[in-house]
Amino acid sequence: MTRYDTAYLLERAWVDDALHDEVLVEVSGGRFSRVEVGGRVALDADPAPTRLAGITLPGLANTHSHAFHRALRGRTQRDRGTFWSWREQMYAVAGRIDPDAMFELARAVYREMAAAGITTVGEFHYLHHQAGGTPYEEPNLMGTLLVEAAREAGIRITLLDACYLAGGFGEPLEGVQRRFGDGDAERWALRVEALAKGVAGRDHARVGAAIHSVRAVPADQLRVVAEAAVGRPLHVHLSEQPAENEGCRAAYGVSPTRLLHDAGVLGRGTTVVHATHVDAWDVALLGVTGTTVSLCPTTERDLADGVGPALRLHEAGSPLTLGSDSQAVVDLFEEMRATELHERLATQRRGHWRAEQLLAAGVGGHASLGWDDAGRIAVGQRADLVTVDSRSVRTAGTGADAGTVVFAASAADVTHVVVDGWVLGREVGEVGRELDDVVGRLLS
Amino acid sequence: MTRYDTAYLLERAWVDDALHDEVLVEVSGGRFSRVEVGGRVALDADPAPTRLAGITLPGLANTHSHAFHRALRGRTQRDRGTFWSWREQMYAVAGRIDPDAMFELARAVYREMAAAGITTVGEFHYLHHQAGGTPYEEPNLMGTLLVEAAREAGIRITLLDACYLAGGFGEPLEGVQRRFGDGDAERWALRVEALAKGVAGRDHARVGAAIHSVRAVPADQLRVVAEAAVGRPLHVHLSEQPAENEGCRAAYGVSPTRLLHDAGVLGRGTTVVHATHVDAWDVALLGVTGTTVSLCPTTERDLADGVGPALRLHEAGSPLTLGSDSQAVVDLFEEMRATELHERLATQRRGHWRAEQLLAAGVGGHASLGWDDAGRIAVGQRADLVTVDSRSVRTAGTGADAGTVVFAASAADVTHVVVDGWVLGREVGEVGRELDDVVGRLLS
Repeated sequence: MTRYDTAYLLERAWVDDALHDEVLVEVSGGRFSRVEVGGRVALDADPAPTRLAGITLPGLANTHSHAFHRALRGRTQRDRGTFWSWREQMYAVAGRIDPDAMFELARAVYREMAAAGITTVGEFHYLHHQAGGTPYEEPNLMGTLLVEAAREAGIRITLLDACYLAGGFGEPLEGVQRRFGDGDAERWALRVEALAKGVAGRDHARVGAAIHSVRAVPADQLRVVAEAAVGRPLHVHLSEQPAENEGCRAAYGVSPTRLLHDAGVLGRGTTVVHATHVDAWDVALLGVTGTTVSLCPTTERDLADGVGPALRLHEAGSPLTLGSDSQAVVDLFEEMRATELHERLATQRRGHWRAEQLLAAGVGGHASLGWDDAGRIAVGQRADLVTVDSRSVRTAGTGADAGTVVFAASAADVTHVVVDGWVLGREVGEVGRELDDVVGRLLS
Repeated sequence: MTRYDTAYLLERAWVDDALHDEVLVEVSGGRFSRVEVGGRVALDADPAPTRLAGITLPGLANTHSHAFHRALRGRTQRDRGTFWSWREQMYAVAGRIDPDAMFELARAVYREMAAAGITTVGEFHYLHHQAGGTPYEEPNLMGTLLVEAAREAGIRITLLDACYLAGGFGEPLEGVQRRFGDGDAERWALRVEALAKGVAGRDHARVGAAIHSVRAVPADQLRVVAEAAVGRPLHVHLSEQPAENEGCRAAYGVSPTRLLHDAGVLGRGTTVVHATHVDAWDVALLGVTGTTVSLCPTTERDLADGVGPALRLHEAGSPLTLGSDSQAVVDLFEEMRATELHERLATQRRGHWRAEQLLAAGVGGHASLGWDDAGRIAVGQRADLVTVDSRSVRTAGTGADAGTVVFAASAADVTHVVVDGWVLGREVGEVGRELDDVVGRLLS
């Protein structure tokens, strides 16, 4: 990585929620110090601006990641089954990950993300302890390593430290799940407080909180988590599968959304992940509280979750963000278009979302991860720039507009990535070989 | 392109419907003259074999293409609508294509396909005549140009010349549709006969027949087409939209499938395209007649067609092949996995198809295009080889098996393409710039 304290002339760039031609930006101390649409370059500018051809976006935010799931890509496709049989395979990998493997795998996956134009990742982290549940000598070893992995990959991270106390409604943790548990929400909160102290002052990292799900955190513990999370982003898996709804109704007589709402979990600082199987009342509750939704379409289709009411949630008032989740695919452009295309398959109508709305979802997730100063090309914002080739074999001839980015581009079209003013320079083939080595060692 | 009359040592290759390590192949006169799994290389081999790392497949067959739709990619996503409003936009482009534009656009798209590992394309061609319907001086000018475009791109083509006589059930051709029509099936057959004579002897091309759909060919003309098509591949769009079914029942009292069957259209030499909205009786008829199905999942989701019963068709006896159709995406790996993933979204279950079956669908379409001597790495077959990088940022860590190809690879992972023994050498960035220029000129 090379430090540039410099200027760029962007052929076309996403500024103020629209694409504009010829945008001049200057970067000082890792932030934009000047942004001028149709900007003129002084003849004697020094340094002269670097011209970036194509479409330049503010960095993409991946609001839902389980880094270690990358080891499962392509490997859970053999058998018939459901989300729940997939989970057994995921647990088998979770069971064998030690701190070294976690660090190496996460660093490689974050490098894959960086190459795909992702400049902030929300890591939903629950693999806290040793086998059997004994804490590591340093109880936040795993989380600390994830933070360090992101730093080495050159991207920002919000570590969403997940509270995971139960193996299901009224069920104890079993098997590998013991690695996830802190006993109760108070102990979880103390550990997270220590983690936050350890991370304080690191410019690339934030600590957020997570409730794994209403399956994993009993109702009487939800409020403890919500209160400990005040001032931090709070994320929670919600209604990914109908079985969660059924279990929740059987245990508490209400939907998971309602249970979360009654415990004070929903609100503007909170993000629910998936929201696939929510009903009209749930949609209204999520919308009126301004709760953000993290949709993960490529995972939701891989895991046969179904097609959720993303557009209705958006219309009700819930901002949409996007996540790569299981890493079946690391490509936020694919997540953007899948949001629309899955609704087409479900409804046999086209044009639910405008391309501009989906692009905004891809860049708009930074705030839900606690980064209010990223995700826009604007003075004072962190200087993230992601340039997409608008004349590649995939994007050529599509008009170089928001439709190009959303309906034609892929992660392979990302040609230039700047994070906090730093240019990321790793060659993507190198990242592939690193991933292959790391996963090979883990599974051998 | 360089002529290689030579040998390859393939790290891993698809031979006899499975992946094998270390496959030695020799190529003479454009065909495989030796294929040996675990083959040893003589120390004094001359020329020494070229080693291809990764997973090598026989060429992919794209069984359903409308080349000129490539100009629409990314451009029909603005408005709400349906398949039918999309068709208006497609017609607007169809109306302005002249022979020069057709040739340039098709050549560029076929180069995009070649770079994606497609070695045979089935071009479903209906843009036959001048505006208003006047034939060109050479009545097969457009078809001949498509054949030439494929030759220049280095891939084989089956020109599926479509009979298109009506604008709907009982409706005349209107507007741009007049460019598609020959008046009646006899005149269509005479034109196709002349085309076939013109193409005879060209090693890279075949002429096949097509019925655009039961909307476009009246029932009393179907049998004429079917009889003229004896000995040639015959393709037909089938039940892509519910409105086709409704119109067919209103006009004839039967489903489109049944209408085709009664006219002698179905059978082993015939391929139906989409078959999205077919019922259990239709599935049985298609299966028992051994009719092939060309599924086009990325187009079917783009056009909001719905999810068809692909697995039930396969189980009933219909071989599955794959097509890029509207060119929203040119990536048969994406078509392979979408076949499974769309069934997951529709059913909330995983594992309908095995990866090996989907891979076989991607390479198995050559026969349905009249090329019985392509699509397998076997002695006597045409020497097509498509190598996929199994350690790219997308494919790394996935185990280098059929799941790697189907669930992780993309067209961007194709590193080496051989067609009929010729190595295709065009740089993919160059293809993108060509596409951008061609589409830009067409739409300006």
